[in-house]
This record gives sequence, C-alpha cells and structure tokens, in this order.
Amino acid sequence: MRKFHPSRHGQRAPRPNEPQHRHRAPARDHDGPVIIYGWHSVKAAIENPTRKLHRLLATENAARRLAEDGVQLPANVELVRPEAIATRLGPEAVHQGLLAEADPLPSLDIDDLDPAHVLLVLDQITDPHNVGAILRSAAAFAVSAVVTTTRHSPEATGVLAKAASGALEYVPIISVPNLARALDVLKRRNVFVVGLDSSGDVDLAHAPLRAPLALVFGAEGKGLRQLTRTTCDVVARLDLPGKLKTLNVSNAAALALHIATSRIAT
Amino acid sequence: MRKFHPSRHGQRAPRPNEPQHRHRAPARDHDGPVIIYGWHSVKAAIENPTRKLHRLLATENAARRLAEDGVQLPANVELVRPEAIATRLGPEAVHQGLLAEADPLPSLDIDDLDPAHVLLVLDQITDPHNVGAILRSAAAFAVSAVVTTTRHSPEATGVLAKAASGALEYVPIISVPNLARALDVLKRRNVFVVGLDSSGDVDLAHAPLRAPLALVFGAEGKGLRQLTRTTCDVVARLDLPGKLKTLNVSNAAALALHIATSRIAT
Repeated sequence: MRKFHPSRHGQRAPRPNEPQHRHRAPARDHDGPVIIYGWHSVKAAIENPTRKLHRLLATENAARRLAEDGVQLPANVELVRPEAIATRLGPEAVHQGLLAEADPLPSLDIDDLDPAHVLLVLDQITDPHNVGAILRSAAAFAVSAVVTTTRHSPEATGVLAKAASGALEYVPIISVPNLARALDVLKRRNVFVVGLDSSGDVDLAHAPLRAPLALVFGAEGKGLRQLTRTTCDVVARLDLPGKLKTLNVSNAAALALHIATSRIAT
Repeated sequence: MRKFHPSRHGQRAPRPNEPQHRHRAPARDHDGPVIIYGWHSVKAAIENPTRKLHRLLATENAARRLAEDGVQLPANVELVRPEAIATRLGPEAVHQGLLAEADPLPSLDIDDLDPAHVLLVLDQITDPHNVGAILRSAAAFAVSAVVTTTRHSPEATGVLAKAASGALEYVPIISVPNLARALDVLKRRNVFVVGLDSSGDVDLAHAPLRAPLALVFGAEGKGLRQLTRTTCDVVARLDLPGKLKTLNVSNAAALALHIATSRIAT
C-alpha cells in the first residue's frame, strides 16, 4: 500500500522550507534555454506572463504582424533577417520569422493538481512530433493537465514546442518519476483512470467513463507498460473498421479525447 | 464548363494505344527506389503482390520474426547487422531491423476510381509525417482512396512510408495535377465533397453528409486553396471546446473520419 498525503490535496503550492515531496519531478538538466519558434508558439509564449523570455528574434514582417495582432513586443526584441533564424534551427524548421529563448515553465507537482474534467497521461511517448501534437489536442479539448514520465519523454522545447502550436503555454505539464504511483494518487483523488491500448478489454465508445477522467497512452509499438496497465481502472481500445487496427498515437489521442469528452458531457 | 468523359466511368484500365488522359498523373522522376523500413511497413510490402521489391535487408531477429508470423521471405533476402540498416537511414529512423528497396506502386487515374464510402483528398499537405499518419488513418477507417496533388506532396517513400505503417499497400493513392478539376470529376460521379477548414460554415457534426463522400484537407497554416474551397459542396469546421481551435492536420483527419463515418453509417 503506497503512502498517501490527504492533507496536501487542493493545496496549490508548497510552503517555504517544506521538504521536497517524493512525487515532485526534479528540475531537469537543460543543455541550454528552451527554444520556441513558429508563429503560434512564440505568440503564445510572449502572451504568457509566466513564461520568462531571454531573447526574442523576429523578422520585420513577423514583428509587424505581431503588433497588428495587438501583441505587446518585449523591449529587447531583436529584428533579424530570416536567415539568422534559419541558421539556428536548420533548413527543416518552419520558423515563420520568430524564435524565442526562454526558461522552462515551472513544473507542477502531482499533489498540487486539482483534478477536473479530463487529464491526459503519457507513458514514455518519446517522439517530440507526437507529444507536441498531443499537447495541442489537449489544449483544444480543454484538458486540465498532461502527466508525463520524467524519463523517456522529450523536453518541452524545439520540435515539440512547434508541434504544440502554443499549447505549452495553456496546458500544465506534470512530470513524474513513477507513473504507476502518480496514477494511484489520481485514483485516490476520485479520478477514473482509463488506459488506451489496441488489446483493450472494451471499445472506448462503450467503456464505463466519468469525470474526472484520466486517459493513458503508451508509446507506439510498446504500448502501455505492464504496471501502468494493471494500475488503470479500465483498459479500452478504439475499434476501427479498416485493414489497419491502430492509429498514430497522437491521432488516437485526438479521437479518444473526442469520444470521451462527448460521452462525459451527455 | 470543363469537359467530361462519361464513357470512361467505371472503366478500370485504359485500352492499349489509348492516348494519355488529361487527368492522368505523370510518373514522377525518382532519384532512386522507394525506401520502406520498419516492421509494419516492410511486412505489408512483402505481402503485397503488386509491390515489386528489389532488395530486402533484414537482421536475423527480424527475419525470424517474419517467418514466425508466417511471412514468406523473398529468396534474395540479405541478412545484415542492424548497423548496416542504420547507416543507410540515419540515427533517427526506427527501422526495427527491416529495410526494403522497391518500385513505387502503379498510380491510379481519377477516372478509374470507383468512388465508394469515403475518400480523402489532400490539398498540398507537404509534411511526410502528417501525410503518412493520414494514410494510416485512411487504412484504419476503410477509406477507398486518397487523392493528392502531384506538386507540393511528399513522395510515398522513407519517413512517409514509415508513418503510414503499411497503409501504402492498402489504400490506393491518386496523384492529380489539378485538384479542383479532380473534385469536379468526383462531384459529377455523385461524390459529395466536404472541405475541412477552421473557418468552415458549419460544424462537421451537423453538416449535411452522405456517401460517397470526399473529405478535403489543406496544409497547416495555409488551409484549403481558394479554388479548392469554392469547388467543395460544403466547407465544414471541427468545433473544439478548448483554448486552441485547431488540431494537427493528421489529428483533424482522424477525427473527421470518425465523425463522418459514424454519421454516414447511421
């Protein structure tokens, strides 16, 4: 039986001098600042008062478009030619004339989370394109937080930030060292935990569901880890009519969010 | 008014010596063979009698797993060490011990298509990860064909083939030089053409829909081109409850396929 701290529930921030809680994710070693590029991602970062920007590189066009959109540009914006940004990011990156260097956002503690509506839980999904797209869908479906593993998860920078299209500024990310333990914390706080796996016991369209709900996704190929799977209240699948029986994990997450939020709402 | 060839409908292959039809996609200039890697993609390619493989590189593990799965290995399979495949593909590629070199599949003509159920139409979506994931969803939702533009579409090889996870072997791809003209051909063959765009006139969940149906998606950022948009019978949007109002295009396609196929089926 894992230890549980009911007195901490609903508490939003640790008290000063309080010892590190065992569910708290350690700050990661970053090789440098968080890199955010692309129109939506940088615009959302500028507009997020919690996001501390160190540098903002913008082309004249992008700076004018931001101003036209009513975005207050920081005083230290550096007007540059597109090539100056492209050189930093490589030829593949669609930067749209904007590049910011920033601090990572402060990380939430699983115990400080107020579980409501729908949460997403990512069990070692490593591909930054997929995690970014999932965060974008999370923001589009009003998900209250995304829980990820400290290990085997991509950092919230670069390709992930671009694919998230600004969602990093809207959806809190909670990084946990032990996912099964975090799911136990959620379950004791009345969250119903549904794993998604192609070998699930029931189609998500007919699975028992209620809010607050956590939808748990595993990596492509590997799926949910065994301990994650056994910790879920239900393991559900997405029934598909065609020759292939699985979707890209970000597509599966978008579909599951639609099905689950529609069913909870009615 | 564009010229129309009713006599060709339902005809599956051109007669010998028949002049090139104006909707026929020209064969593309390939710099080399189609590259297919990864477990699902290569397994599906081996099992597709229409796919002509030139070379098959497999690790001993992968070859044994294929044999255990009842897959008949070609006589010329080359057993190699994983590094031999990794060297060809670069460090990012998850090859799972399998790499095939193949001919592209023969391309279909829009006039040879038998429109049934649901079609997908991609209006200059350039990202191979997205197009691959969309093809995978197409195969999962039993889409009858995917129509793409000859220009500004990625080739069906490499990253796209991997992301498609075998779907290249299941879903016919029709490449057309003029998308608006191809949509006109479909409309005259009783296909109902629905464009998807965040500025659409009606939520897809309430839009008029019927089979045979074509769902048309534009590139991220650019959306549907003007002529594509005006050629659609309806332009629909996906209403989303959260702060972000758009999804990654492959996520949007999966969601639209789910909504549309559910509504057509009932």
